[in-house]
Amino acid sequence: MERIKIFSPATVANVSCGFDVLGFCLDSVGDEMVIRKTSEKGIRITKIEGSDLPFNPEDNVAGVSALALYNYLKPDCGFEIEIYKNIKPGSGIGSSSASAAGSVFGINELLGKPLSKLQLTKYALKGEALASGSEHADNLAPAIFGGFTLVRSVNPVDVLQLPTPNDLYTTLIHPQIEIKTSEARAILPNEVPLSNAITQWSNVGSLVHALHTNDYHLLSKTLNDIVVEPYRKQLIPEFDKLKTEVINAGALGCGISGSGPSIFALSKGKAKATEVEKVMQNVYEKTEIPFYTFVSKINTEGIKIL
Amino acid sequence: MERIKIFSPATVANVSCGFDVLGFCLDSVGDEMVIRKTSEKGIRITKIEGSDLPFNPEDNVAGVSALALYNYLKPDCGFEIEIYKNIKPGSGIGSSSASAAGSVFGINELLGKPLSKLQLTKYALKGEALASGSEHADNLAPAIFGGFTLVRSVNPVDVLQLPTPNDLYTTLIHPQIEIKTSEARAILPNEVPLSNAITQWSNVGSLVHALHTNDYHLLSKTLNDIVVEPYRKQLIPEFDKLKTEVINAGALGCGISGSGPSIFALSKGKAKATEVEKVMQNVYEKTEIPFYTFVSKINTEGIKIL
Repeated sequence: MERIKIFSPATVANVSCGFDVLGFCLDSVGDEMVIRKTSEKGIRITKIEGSDLPFNPEDNVAGVSALALYNYLKPDCGFEIEIYKNIKPGSGIGSSSASAAGSVFGINELLGKPLSKLQLTKYALKGEALASGSEHADNLAPAIFGGFTLVRSVNPVDVLQLPTPNDLYTTLIHPQIEIKTSEARAILPNEVPLSNAITQWSNVGSLVHALHTNDYHLLSKTLNDIVVEPYRKQLIPEFDKLKTEVINAGALGCGISGSGPSIFALSKGKAKATEVEKVMQNVYEKTEIPFYTFVSKINTEGIKIL
Repeated sequence: MERIKIFSPATVANVSCGFDVLGFCLDSVGDEMVIRKTSEKGIRITKIEGSDLPFNPEDNVAGVSALALYNYLKPDCGFEIEIYKNIKPGSGIGSSSASAAGSVFGINELLGKPLSKLQLTKYALKGEALASGSEHADNLAPAIFGGFTLVRSVNPVDVLQLPTPNDLYTTLIHPQIEIKTSEARAILPNEVPLSNAITQWSNVGSLVHALHTNDYHLLSKTLNDIVVEPYRKQLIPEFDKLKTEVINAGALGCGISGSGPSIFALSKGKAKATEVEKVMQNVYEKTEIPFYTFVSKINTEGIKIL
């Protein structure tokens, strides 16, 4: 294989209670990338559509992860990368992770899959670190593995694939305001009350149990974040109002996607997720803020060849 | 049925990463209780062996939970309770929970099981609160439900029954020193670093996944406590030395049982658990501290009629 076209999906990190460790993968939104083997060695980014990201590989998330993998594998060829960006950088649905995962996944495929998904995560982390300033795998893991994932540890990388209930859909709204990941991190306290931490780890454990037992009712009860959301929601206009209305409409849960500003909801069934989308639209139509919304099934496959 | 004899098992709370929420149930050590219907109304404790606990029901953990249940159900009879205490109070393996669970379980059986296990937990909590000063279900839940449990919430009570790997054994050592639960609580900080809390909820989620997937290797990696153990271990002589030797001997994990002073280890297979027991004995034989040790399979049934 000399050329590959891939779909690198958007992802939701944190999933309310699981700050920095939980994530899930989306179906309906993602970047496309074309990667080509070249006789000339090295990594080149030859085309970027849909974004003004830098072409220099060392300044580009997809380039940095590609270089990390390339320098490890030392293949007898080079690679050209074209990036068709459908995930808006800064939207909070794993734009940088999709880029970082896409290039290492594609190169690995073109070389005959020498590395496992877990090993790929390690190199993708280098690209992710360029975007967020530190190595986080909570978006990368669901992009690479699909479904729900839990990042048990980053150093060494350890990712658990959790089961995904069959009828689970997510609704997302992206209010088009800018929140820098660094700003969203800086707003967090360095310490949390022990009692809140206990509630949070009780919910993380319960969420994992809910996924294993296909228990939507329990899942709903665990989608609660008393550690991070109270701080970060201040950065997102109308968050409380939107969440209240989404829950009243029957969503299982609602929270900030990653570091925001996107807000996700989870629902049982596509019809409910679509109803929730309308509710989100109604809330934001009363503001001056441009936004878009979409519904997605949970993508259990993850990144894939098109 | 006019009279019932029950076995109310010892339990291990916290299980390293799951402070205040996780617990598991033991097979080989527990209290026995005999409960008798009487025509005279009210709750009477008529016999206590193995301990100098108070006979007045309002001052006795088993009495307080029995009274709470009795006042709710308002039956047309009374109950006499005999307590044969095999679990040493203050040992850190759920002595008060065994008492609190035993009386409500027995009375419920004698009345034809009007209440569910979850409802019984609610009344047993009243007894537990007498002992520990606040309502905690992390020992009660495994005593009543058996196996591994996760207390998702205390108010309202919500308990998850987790799967138990078939070949899992625990080894316990009880160094006979006194640690009051209140003292063990007071030593804890009110706040924890966010980064430590993240590690802890990552491990709780991973432990639940390990139990569902029967993954002993993963289970071992999750048995880690960076939030509570660093403080409480100061109250237990030789904790670090014992833990190191137990892990070197091949145990899956080792930590403080509840608020201590008992220390538990988990092992795959009875042979390994017995080897670990020898290691624990060797460490404590070099001290002046009296102690005893035992091995137990995880008890998946919980409290039961004898």
